Amino acid sequence: MKEKDIFCRIINGEIPCHKLYEDDDVLAFLDISQVTRGHALVIPKKHYDNFLSVPHEEMHKVMDVAQRIGQIAIKFLGAKGVNILTNCYEAAGQTVNHFHVHVIPRYEDKEGFHLEMRNNSSEELNLPALAREIKENL
Amino acid sequence: MKEKDIFCRIINGEIPCHKLYEDDDVLAFLDISQVTRGHALVIPKKHYDNFLSVPHEEMHKVMDVAQRIGQIAIKFLGAKGVNILTNCYEAAGQTVNHFHVHVIPRYEDKEGFHLEMRNNSSEELNLPALAREIKENL
Repeated sequence: MKEKDIFCRIINGEIPCHKLYEDDDVLAFLDISQVTRGHALVIPKKHYDNFLSVPHEEMHKVMDVAQRIGQIAIKFLGAKGVNILTNCYEAAGQTVNHFHVHVIPRYEDKEGFHLEMRNNSSEELNLPALAREIKENL
Repeated sequence: MKEKDIFCRIINGEIPCHKLYEDDDVLAFLDISQVTRGHALVIPKKHYDNFLSVPHEEMHKVMDVAQRIGQIAIKFLGAKGVNILTNCYEAAGQTVNHFHVHVIPRYEDKEGFHLEMRNNSSEELNLPALAREIKENL
């Protein structure tokens, strides 16, 4: 039998968490790492490996709760911004193989979250060909 | 009259894009910055400032397309992972004030996307109190 991931164990009550929200399908709690103050995770109670494999209906429920928590961070925690992030597979930084959405409130500075997005000019990309390749498979 | 944002102008056909997908409500295209190969943006055609202000139904449609493009990146572009990201407000790195979801395929190295999440130990956080503060406002 495959060992249960840590989020399944939290859902089952085997591991405690700082719960923010719970209904029949969704659980939200504070990420124990707190990369910023109020850093929350929203997960479906049913196990799916990641965002790419979760059925639409359950993904929508998770996203709705993520949105609500993001709104709360702005209104009540003093956040100036929020990042909503989900990582799929280890190559993208996924560390627990149970679909989870990060809600990361952003403040002025001294934060544990650093995001850098820069043009990858190391590679010459043929954008029309690349767009065709994706479109053909959608 | 408020000036139209660049994504509204793309939707209106005033600015070209490398289109991936389009229906009545949603448009997907290659981000011109290509932080990694295949980096795509998914947006609602109707204007909303960000993820925190978009109605559920339209947000779901955007997320469904983002999921599909992420699946394509794994299956057909050779990506080993995918980040799904949306930034709300400038403090979170939002540069265009029109709700958009980044689909960022991840490969082995030489990438323009860098994500760092570390425990923010510079601040002593009272997690039970913080969880209460969020829960009370949900």
